[in-house]
Amino acid sequence: MLPDPLTRLVEQLQKLPGIGAKGAQRLAFHILKNPRDDAERLCEAIRDIKERVTYCTVCNNITEQDPCGFCTSVSRDQRLICVVEEPQNVSVVEKTREFRGVYHVLMGALSPLHGVGPDDLKIQGLLSRVKDGAVDEVILATNPNVEGEATALYLARLLKPLGVRVTRIAMGIPVGSDLEYADEVTMSRAMEGRREV
Amino acid sequence: MLPDPLTRLVEQLQKLPGIGAKGAQRLAFHILKNPRDDAERLCEAIRDIKERVTYCTVCNNITEQDPCGFCTSVSRDQRLICVVEEPQNVSVVEKTREFRGVYHVLMGALSPLHGVGPDDLKIQGLLSRVKDGAVDEVILATNPNVEGEATALYLARLLKPLGVRVTRIAMGIPVGSDLEYADEVTMSRAMEGRREV
Repeated sequence: MLPDPLTRLVEQLQKLPGIGAKGAQRLAFHILKNPRDDAERLCEAIRDIKERVTYCTVCNNITEQDPCGFCTSVSRDQRLICVVEEPQNVSVVEKTREFRGVYHVLMGALSPLHGVGPDDLKIQGLLSRVKDGAVDEVILATNPNVEGEATALYLARLLKPLGVRVTRIAMGIPVGSDLEYADEVTMSRAMEGRREV
Repeated sequence: MLPDPLTRLVEQLQKLPGIGAKGAQRLAFHILKNPRDDAERLCEAIRDIKERVTYCTVCNNITEQDPCGFCTSVSRDQRLICVVEEPQNVSVVEKTREFRGVYHVLMGALSPLHGVGPDDLKIQGLLSRVKDGAVDEVILATNPNVEGEATALYLARLLKPLGVRVTRIAMGIPVGSDLEYADEVTMSRAMEGRREV
């Protein structure tokens, strides 16, 4: 006996990641109860993001201007490229406030199971940037899972012959956590990656 | 370094219940990545719900026509009113497929701590419906928490002098759960409400 428009909104909200049937209904009732202005502002923000945000033709990061702020910045080291899977990974690296290079977003990771091959990723653009000769080092910061590892290995094999330094971010015990909770793969990576103190 | 429109969408999404900073960012990136049509459909559904869904002037339930389908139905027992706090509670009762009466939505519960008094709830409408004399029983199905209990007690005190039968839904151990996990208040309510077998 739910009104049609409510059912339709619940359907649309359920398509969003991490929102199930109960959550979608809760959100729909919230939108219904709250002022019309709030709903308008939400709609405008959704429209705006689709209209105004685009992808940088150099690094594929999201941006309002193309090329993006990173690729045109004189204060960033254009000879150091950090490769990530998704645009949202850029802000994770930025939050460290220590990386002063630029980025290259692959828009995914190799995943034969999901039908994602090399041609589905922004790999050609990365190779062109390196071939242009103005790059010293490529840091592979793909996710530390099966797909991310496979992607990193694949890229390393393509990049090394071009005479560029290729590195992979370290895997190990997260800072502030407890050895007790480390899984065996992480622990073995932490041992493997040990350093002199 | 996130584009402005993205930051604004994250802000708007964070205002929704149960969506934090991380969740909002995840949703925003999802909307950005997915086809424009999906975003359009979501916006339309949000606008539609604000334009087309209204509240029934009899029972305050959400509806596209006023009065709502329950209040105008000849197959529902108009002499039996189930009182709930919010419109979303109606569907919980409907799902039992056993209740054949009508509803009255209070639009909240008494909560002095949050500044919600009797005048903030749709109590007058309920009293009018009962005073009109065409009601046999009022089932108080407010939530089984402090606010819901206080509201039920308050309503019972107002309704009983009007010569109507007033009942409260049973509290006890949920069906399919285990006594081991029952808290002491629920367990004591279950003992109190015991019946002959």
